Amino acid sequence: MSTSTALLTDRYELTMLDAALRDGTAERRCLFEVFARTLPHDRRYGVVAGTGRVLELIRDVTFGPDELDWLAANDVVSARTLEWLADYRFTGTITGYHEGELYFPGSPILTVEASFAEGVILETLVLSVLNYDSSVASAAARMVSAAGGRPLAEMGSRRTGERSAVAAARAAFIAGFSATSNLEAGRSWGIPTMGTAAHAFTLLHDTEEDAFRSQVATMGPGTTLLVDTYDVERGTALAVEVAGPELGAVRLDSGDLPALVASVRAQLDSLGNHHTKITVTNDLDEYTIAALAATPVDSYGVGTSVVTGSGSVAAGMVYKLVAHRTVDGEWMPVAKKSAEKTSIGGKKRAVRRLNARGVATAEVLYVEAAIGGAGPRSSENARDLLHTFVTEGVIDERYTGAAGVLAAREHRAKAVAELPAEGLRLARGGEPVIPTEYVAGA
Amino acid sequence: MSTSTALLTDRYELTMLDAALRDGTAERRCLFEVFARTLPHDRRYGVVAGTGRVLELIRDVTFGPDELDWLAANDVVSARTLEWLADYRFTGTITGYHEGELYFPGSPILTVEASFAEGVILETLVLSVLNYDSSVASAAARMVSAAGGRPLAEMGSRRTGERSAVAAARAAFIAGFSATSNLEAGRSWGIPTMGTAAHAFTLLHDTEEDAFRSQVATMGPGTTLLVDTYDVERGTALAVEVAGPELGAVRLDSGDLPALVASVRAQLDSLGNHHTKITVTNDLDEYTIAALAATPVDSYGVGTSVVTGSGSVAAGMVYKLVAHRTVDGEWMPVAKKSAEKTSIGGKKRAVRRLNARGVATAEVLYVEAAIGGAGPRSSENARDLLHTFVTEGVIDERYTGAAGVLAAREHRAKAVAELPAEGLRLARGGEPVIPTEYVAGA
Repeated sequence: MSTSTALLTDRYELTMLDAALRDGTAERRCLFEVFARTLPHDRRYGVVAGTGRVLELIRDVTFGPDELDWLAANDVVSARTLEWLADYRFTGTITGYHEGELYFPGSPILTVEASFAEGVILETLVLSVLNYDSSVASAAARMVSAAGGRPLAEMGSRRTGERSAVAAARAAFIAGFSATSNLEAGRSWGIPTMGTAAHAFTLLHDTEEDAFRSQVATMGPGTTLLVDTYDVERGTALAVEVAGPELGAVRLDSGDLPALVASVRAQLDSLGNHHTKITVTNDLDEYTIAALAATPVDSYGVGTSVVTGSGSVAAGMVYKLVAHRTVDGEWMPVAKKSAEKTSIGGKKRAVRRLNARGVATAEVLYVEAAIGGAGPRSSENARDLLHTFVTEGVIDERYTGAAGVLAAREHRAKAVAELPAEGLRLARGGEPVIPTEYVAGA
Repeated sequence: MSTSTALLTDRYELTMLDAALRDGTAERRCLFEVFARTLPHDRRYGVVAGTGRVLELIRDVTFGPDELDWLAANDVVSARTLEWLADYRFTGTITGYHEGELYFPGSPILTVEASFAEGVILETLVLSVLNYDSSVASAAARMVSAAGGRPLAEMGSRRTGERSAVAAARAAFIAGFSATSNLEAGRSWGIPTMGTAAHAFTLLHDTEEDAFRSQVATMGPGTTLLVDTYDVERGTALAVEVAGPELGAVRLDSGDLPALVASVRAQLDSLGNHHTKITVTNDLDEYTIAALAATPVDSYGVGTSVVTGSGSVAAGMVYKLVAHRTVDGEWMPVAKKSAEKTSIGGKKRAVRRLNARGVATAEVLYVEAAIGGAGPRSSENARDLLHTFVTEGVIDERYTGAAGVLAAREHRAKAVAELPAEGLRLARGGEPVIPTEYVAGA
């Protein structure tokens, strides 16, 4: 199997390349910018995720014999373009928001500076990754806030495509989740994995007691026993009987959780199992998590809602040509004019303006007709948002792999801490918590 | 890179295996069933997709040194279980609904008969695939109906994870779409690919005319020109001027489509380009497709809505242990009792009851306590829904690869043709168009 990611793209990226190579525009130096026109409907902020994955996937955009033969057999591009693709390696420069950074409408999340030819063929791949991963991270971050410090585990692998599941686990971890059920996410990205048993394990055994005894014998009394296969009260009593005072946790996966959590806590306490925790996993989202805040729940497992972006499964980011360099070496902003899909041309510098207490007050985008234009006044408290990920084709490896994931998770924590308090409100229908201001270039 | 799919699973599948190997229940013969308790909120029927992918992915569930080392280093399972995994190959039997078949609440879409050990570790992978792919196919099938015979192209790769994009293209094709923009879907599954140029291509050039001339020079006058970068009327006039009477199509990607389509058609006709087609691609879903039915649109390109299941991105299927074989060799139905998540135990035989005109009237599930139980009366017009995909570990290759996709697409067309007319209504809030009837076994 080819490990190339080159065909994870739309056909028109290659047909545009074909025409541009023929007419000579392929070598024009271009700026492509990834941004979102709006945040998903009920969000105050978005969380950038996927950047590290993008960098690794770009490294694998190579056209080997498998790819070239298929393109030739299917008459996608000309022989001349096939030759060009055979030598393709990305040699441009990529800057953007740190993975884990917050974003707002218009934030230039990723900027690709390259020839048209090199930049255009990355569009679809870059967007697939950033849209899905950021959608998950943006939903997950709200769940983390709603949980108020109690740990969350991502366990939605079965509710998204089998490879998206790995990306979702990664994005949720960056957004502040503590662990995932997905083993490949553990192997590929170093994310802590968790999980003990499902209802099938209880049903397999002749009695619930047999199942619990087997699980405790294998995993020790500190395991989490799933107590709702038949009857929660009897299941809980049995769990304590089998595992004893060291029982780690009981898991509830059905029922009216607020009431159930309270009664199970009372039952555990009455049996002397004050240290046995309660974890809940029944179709949770940020709202039901918040609704459990007043109950003695200890941790949450979240499935469908986190891997599907809690109602906004695609973040709506676009990858737009915003400038190209003229024969004089000047950057010329370009933008389409059609109807509702306007974009703001030109290279941008992005800072987050903070007040004296370090609270974010605006996303400020300095639109520069030429590199080195205006920026914030030196007296302003503003944090620069752009980092350089790829320099002339060389990837900064600090942003990739498991280390990149950890760095992103830490970055997200710091960025969320800058949000005004109202940024963490869950209510639907809100506006971005800080405005996006465009400042014309020098 | 390992091509194994073994770690695309939840940790608890392996910890359950670990405990079951220790207590001796791992070898119990089990039936696991995939079904959906409900259809997504506004649907009359669902479309099964992903089956062929599941079969190929199961073939790649192998625990090589990479997987075993990682499991050992992370203390997921015992040394004894690692040994068992090293030899793992699925040797069970899998039956189920033909890919492309329609499904209803309770339909036994896939049944895995195997030892607990062999069956349990497939749960997450099977569900990831069937849930995502069926969600896309179920949404896509409604778009196909809404389009009333006009061709649809899937072009949503950038709005779902980069590998889910390939699966989405495949599922949409099975549901009746004609083509995809995704090249990897073309290579992997033989799906026709399409696409010519995006706005970036026009913006790259000094003028729209330069861009059109270049595209026509490379792709011929039969190409599709994107005419809405600046002004649709001028863009359309220019497209005709550049490509002449042979212009294949114009594409509209913004604006008020019903009005725009009508005016562009009139303009094309007035210029003598009666054969130039109009394709539209602006954030379409089944409702906006239907709203364009009365306009002279020729084809549709659909992105976000199809790859995100048009509001229901996970089909909600579950993989449940429904029976295991006792020491007497009898199948014993099992089912959990907790709260809202009931399931119906036991092996099932599924038929679609048809009336004399061949119209579907019910999904009939014969629940059999033992194999070979009751079935439909011979006088009934009923179509058997279960096929055998894997027999004692041997995959029937007719269901895999590009040939499997084509067979699924044809199967879907036949199954949709059996639906009562009200099954194709788009209105939200409907019920399944035929009831699911359970018949107790002999």
